[in-house]
Amino acid sequence: MSSSENTILGLKMATDPRWADVASLSLEHILTDHAFCEQKAATQCISLIQQFSDYPAIVEALAPIVTEEWGHFRMVLAEMKKRGFQLGSQRKDEYVNKLLEHTPKGGTRESRLLHKLLICALIEARSCERFRILYENLEDRELSKFYYKFMISEAGHYRLFLDLAREYFDHDLVRQEWLNWLQVEKNILADMPARSDRMH
Amino acid sequence: MSSSENTILGLKMATDPRWADVASLSLEHILTDHAFCEQKAATQCISLIQQFSDYPAIVEALAPIVTEEWGHFRMVLAEMKKRGFQLGSQRKDEYVNKLLEHTPKGGTRESRLLHKLLICALIEARSCERFRILYENLEDRELSKFYYKFMISEAGHYRLFLDLAREYFDHDLVRQEWLNWLQVEKNILADMPARSDRMH
Repeated sequence: MSSSENTILGLKMATDPRWADVASLSLEHILTDHAFCEQKAATQCISLIQQFSDYPAIVEALAPIVTEEWGHFRMVLAEMKKRGFQLGSQRKDEYVNKLLEHTPKGGTRESRLLHKLLICALIEARSCERFRILYENLEDRELSKFYYKFMISEAGHYRLFLDLAREYFDHDLVRQEWLNWLQVEKNILADMPARSDRMH
Repeated sequence: MSSSENTILGLKMATDPRWADVASLSLEHILTDHAFCEQKAATQCISLIQQFSDYPAIVEALAPIVTEEWGHFRMVLAEMKKRGFQLGSQRKDEYVNKLLEHTPKGGTRESRLLHKLLICALIEARSCERFRILYENLEDRELSKFYYKFMISEAGHYRLFLDLAREYFDHDLVRQEWLNWLQVEKNILADMPARSDRMH
């Protein structure tokens, strides 16, 4: 079976089995990293609202997502506290930074919006895939259920960002740019070591 | 009566009566500005959590404040929608930027934390004063009640930021730096024109 058959939400490469060997994961580090991923997701939506406050559907759709992502941050914090874990420091997010580096230079404000929405959709899709791996493989049943909720939520957000892109842009353009981004993401991930202390 | 007797929460200068002449306020602009003030308050708390994730009391106290400030952003959005107003663009926040410029240069990470907490307390105190003016003077009873809730909330946040400062720093130092900041804020405000389209 090729790796592409292994994926969900259209992603072109399944996660490296070394990461998927969840027995090796450092839960304290993964939870810290997860907390900051939720924080960044909230911040990214706030930033879209600020930059595109003249796009009412963006503001209306993303305002509740900020509440939800920040709620997730607090759920991860509570889970860490219950387990006696310390929230560590935020790390540089190499995966997200590499995606951002691939945003076409120049372009109109509109095209920047399209690429930002697609990058958000991509990060949500990959997070959903990772959460599924945690949900399906963690032996700790409580934590497995915890990740099931996040998996469902990220799948919804992935759809939301693609729907927003289709609301403002031609559907064929969205599809073509989305296929490009899936390829870019595959290449980025292929070049990155799978790290047992990070979500991405 | 001197202007200082007119103030609340220790502020050294009451708001310019030209701003307090609420009949002249542009509600659509004030609400847009207010929405973005709430957004910045949320973002500022997220930033403190990121930068000082190794201060558990900071993380624990501010995580719910982000939820609350973002909830306020959404309440302002809903109020604008009800009135058929459009959310405008975020403006440069001259008042907050001038406060930030007065942060002592250099200094340790700890002293930066102290000043950040005091600046947050100051902004909350001034916002509380402005909300009180709106609450007491707006003829629109519904909007007046709306601002009463914000006034109460900001007063609570003002106290929270000062309490956090006292949790980590010597009380005499906090008091001395707070008195300095009150004077700085008075001078900044004295140099700024009162604008009827802005919260600050």
